[in-house]
Amino acid sequence: MLRYGQTVFTICIMCQLLGMNCNTPTDIVFSFTGFATRGGLTDEHKDGWGIAFFEGSGVRLFVDHQSAVDSPVAELIKRYPIKSRNVIAHIRKATQGQVSLENCHPFVRECWGRYWVFAHNGDLKEFAPVLDGSFQPVGNTDSERAFCYLLQRMRRHFGEQLPSVQQLAQFMHEITAEIASYGTFNMMLSNGEALFTHCSTKLYYIVRQHPFTTAALTDEDVAVDFSQLTTPADKVAIIVTEPLTTNESWTQCASGQMLVFVDGDVLPLSLPGATA
Amino acid sequence: MLRYGQTVFTICIMCQLLGMNCNTPTDIVFSFTGFATRGGLTDEHKDGWGIAFFEGSGVRLFVDHQSAVDSPVAELIKRYPIKSRNVIAHIRKATQGQVSLENCHPFVRECWGRYWVFAHNGDLKEFAPVLDGSFQPVGNTDSERAFCYLLQRMRRHFGEQLPSVQQLAQFMHEITAEIASYGTFNMMLSNGEALFTHCSTKLYYIVRQHPFTTAALTDEDVAVDFSQLTTPADKVAIIVTEPLTTNESWTQCASGQMLVFVDGDVLPLSLPGATA
Repeated sequence: MLRYGQTVFTICIMCQLLGMNCNTPTDIVFSFTGFATRGGLTDEHKDGWGIAFFEGSGVRLFVDHQSAVDSPVAELIKRYPIKSRNVIAHIRKATQGQVSLENCHPFVRECWGRYWVFAHNGDLKEFAPVLDGSFQPVGNTDSERAFCYLLQRMRRHFGEQLPSVQQLAQFMHEITAEIASYGTFNMMLSNGEALFTHCSTKLYYIVRQHPFTTAALTDEDVAVDFSQLTTPADKVAIIVTEPLTTNESWTQCASGQMLVFVDGDVLPLSLPGATA
Repeated sequence: MLRYGQTVFTICIMCQLLGMNCNTPTDIVFSFTGFATRGGLTDEHKDGWGIAFFEGSGVRLFVDHQSAVDSPVAELIKRYPIKSRNVIAHIRKATQGQVSLENCHPFVRECWGRYWVFAHNGDLKEFAPVLDGSFQPVGNTDSERAFCYLLQRMRRHFGEQLPSVQQLAQFMHEITAEIASYGTFNMMLSNGEALFTHCSTKLYYIVRQHPFTTAALTDEDVAVDFSQLTTPADKVAIIVTEPLTTNESWTQCASGQMLVFVDGDVLPLSLPGATA
């Protein structure tokens, strides 16, 4: 058994999260453009960033410890529309510890023959769970430790078979509440099928669907008319720590609320505080 | 217990591998330029490609199922010198099965709190080991299955503590020979400290060191004078399935030979067929 209680872990109070879950592969160029601007230009989140795109069961992960506004990789993503049904992005402001690639979110692990992608905003104090070695942090963030603990608990609980999204959500609701008792735990997790979120202090979402309108970015002088880019059947959920647009109505999540997004919308769950 | 014997797996007979191990962080722009040209321009390896760079204990992984000559991500890597001490790249020619992101090498898993990166050239016939679920393939290649099996065997054998490179090499020599008995198993594996290779049919390497000379690419009309870019202390080992340059002397590995590269050179090992 391994115990990480002695190590100094880095925490990520001031980070920003962006998630997207859709019913059809969609590019995130518009939302990422506004989001990436926060990485060193319109605010102080300049200690690295990362974005993970599911493509089928595969994942493209881009991480960089340069600020998102200076990063040639971020520039590529703004120009090259990768279409995905599940995306998680993160911009980091390190409040403790070094800025290094292994500490950049999102983190990726394989479990049940699927990739799992995780990113966290917040800090967990004295969170030193016993890890059995099945999933171990590579870097030294409280976030990666929480991710490893979450996967370890899930695999121990469900055994060898991937459970349904409903079963996962029910169990994850317990574990996220347990982890959140150590501090702030705004998080996003996806296995390419569903996108799970937990809100401690700040998380907002919007479901863009027919009739689509024009959205204007808060951080850049850019607007897009989604009705020109979509079909009436499209549904796209965007989840963020701070609203990205000025003229759309974002729903704020409650503290302790867990949400699960599938096919671009909130999945009804019979959990306290977990319905939309 | 999970058994994969019933599934149709894709195999990768015609792929190309490129590895780099150095004693100082070095960019791979020159070698990758020649290598990427093979992805759809000078030969038929056009079914995706990937490259993984260690940076400290972190990994940057770029995978794409477009051919490397058409890929905007490959273009980025040729222009943006990412410095690394351990790199593994792969260009895929699928001989069976679909072209999809989850089947692109290199594959990455975490074990003992480190990332492990793996790529394979060859095919394994009726290779259906029992996997206990600790590492499972996401895609359907014989290569990813071999990688999962290798990690499973290593973790079972060594338990909770990361063994030394010598211990790893000794055990891996047994396992690679076992896997190679199922077919062609030219492979590269790195944990960011060492780069392990196994040759079944074709693998060549060169150690570039003082006095550095000019190297000319086989696949493109490009040459570079390394003496202008290096210090006398630098050592860079390049390992490939086909020599990349016309005017350097590449050492061909023997069939069944395992090599371990550390700090840009071959590590002496007391294994049959494993010394340089």
